[in-house]
Amino acid sequence: MKSGPGTLYGVGVGPGDPELITLKAVRVLKAARVVCFFRKRGSKGHALSIARPFLPVSAVEIPFEYPVTTEVRFTDDDYVRPISEFYAVAANSIAHYLGEGQDVALLCEGDPFFYGSFLHMYERLKGNFPSVVIPGVTGMSGCWTSAGAPIALGDDVLTVLPGTLAADDLTAKLRSTDAAAIMKVGCNLPKIREALRLSGRLEEAIYVERGTMEGERVVPLWQVEALAAPYFSIVLVPGCRGRRIL
Amino acid sequence: MKSGPGTLYGVGVGPGDPELITLKAVRVLKAARVVCFFRKRGSKGHALSIARPFLPVSAVEIPFEYPVTTEVRFTDDDYVRPISEFYAVAANSIAHYLGEGQDVALLCEGDPFFYGSFLHMYERLKGNFPSVVIPGVTGMSGCWTSAGAPIALGDDVLTVLPGTLAADDLTAKLRSTDAAAIMKVGCNLPKIREALRLSGRLEEAIYVERGTMEGERVVPLWQVEALAAPYFSIVLVPGCRGRRIL
Repeated sequence: MKSGPGTLYGVGVGPGDPELITLKAVRVLKAARVVCFFRKRGSKGHALSIARPFLPVSAVEIPFEYPVTTEVRFTDDDYVRPISEFYAVAANSIAHYLGEGQDVALLCEGDPFFYGSFLHMYERLKGNFPSVVIPGVTGMSGCWTSAGAPIALGDDVLTVLPGTLAADDLTAKLRSTDAAAIMKVGCNLPKIREALRLSGRLEEAIYVERGTMEGERVVPLWQVEALAAPYFSIVLVPGCRGRRIL
Repeated sequence: MKSGPGTLYGVGVGPGDPELITLKAVRVLKAARVVCFFRKRGSKGHALSIARPFLPVSAVEIPFEYPVTTEVRFTDDDYVRPISEFYAVAANSIAHYLGEGQDVALLCEGDPFFYGSFLHMYERLKGNFPSVVIPGVTGMSGCWTSAGAPIALGDDVLTVLPGTLAADDLTAKLRSTDAAAIMKVGCNLPKIREALRLSGRLEEAIYVERGTMEGERVVPLWQVEALAAPYFSIVLVPGCRGRRIL
């Protein structure tokens, strides 16, 4: 029996396509005994479905179900309170296993250090337990690859924007960048479309839904009339439409 | 014998650590017969050293050696002319194999559609040959993971900046973003340091050299006194120093 606390593994499982997971993530998953993951209430858990083929059948699977949507602004008190409690409970649950000397693999869609719920666990636990983070292919890399749309080249500036930003913030940022990836689309889709129109970038924008996954959809954004987009969606403004090709 | 042209595979091999390659990349490499890659003159080729353990011993390896450094501005004519010819010759060489019906795996450090030399091949060849692009873990993901520095969370804006930008451009962009990743550091290091100082971000900045690779080095940027940095280096300004943890 191992003595001392267990190690927290933050395992980036990539953008969705199960083949876009790294060898390092697979190695950790194959040895996992306790596996934690976040999921929407009522769903099976996307990260789990990517990881499961590699997990030992004996692994204990612990889902943490989000109490609310993640597409409201982080300054919104009605969002912050329940989710803060939720993260505290999840971190305590992980700490319990780590304290007993068991390693915990926490699954992360994309890359753990890039806008991941993992960070809310990592910041709570890193002071008390050893941790290892395994970077992954980000959702946005998966999406621009699926779209056949090189995102940046040469001197391009790429700005990653949360769709939760205020309309005028979004517009200003879009005006001053070569390329953009807009995340957290959801119910912010009409605002994003308007910011792209005001900044003169709407015609270049590409909408990607479920990039690298089953049911993937890639369309010019101006053709999308929906008022809201599902969780796995992104808007891309590629920076290099061939003009910087040497 | 397969009829028709070969397929161009743009294979993202990840940030450096050979375990941070994806299963999909490994599958393509194991079946490769012709493998192309860019490298600095006099080096073995970094992408090749990551890929080699997976390549059949019979695979033909074709290096393309950069005639010049890649850390000058893309508007500089003395840079553009030789490298443009170089890319044209490399693309012709690849087209030769594809035209004969042979598949070609072109190795790409990081992610092929994210500031990769691959794009100069892809844009020249995609009209005439089928292509498949395999996204990879970016160099910057590898670096912020190595630094133990979550880069962005919640409503953070992340700006990816080439160090080749003019000093005042860099300063303005750094002032208006939560997080930044500055690429193409090289001889631009003093300018980058000054832009960070002027934007009030110098104390937060982290310098990462050879992230995820042997000889990795992570230090606060203000402690780095060198006038130039090696090719595999990046400067990170993390956006989430715990203040957005819920």
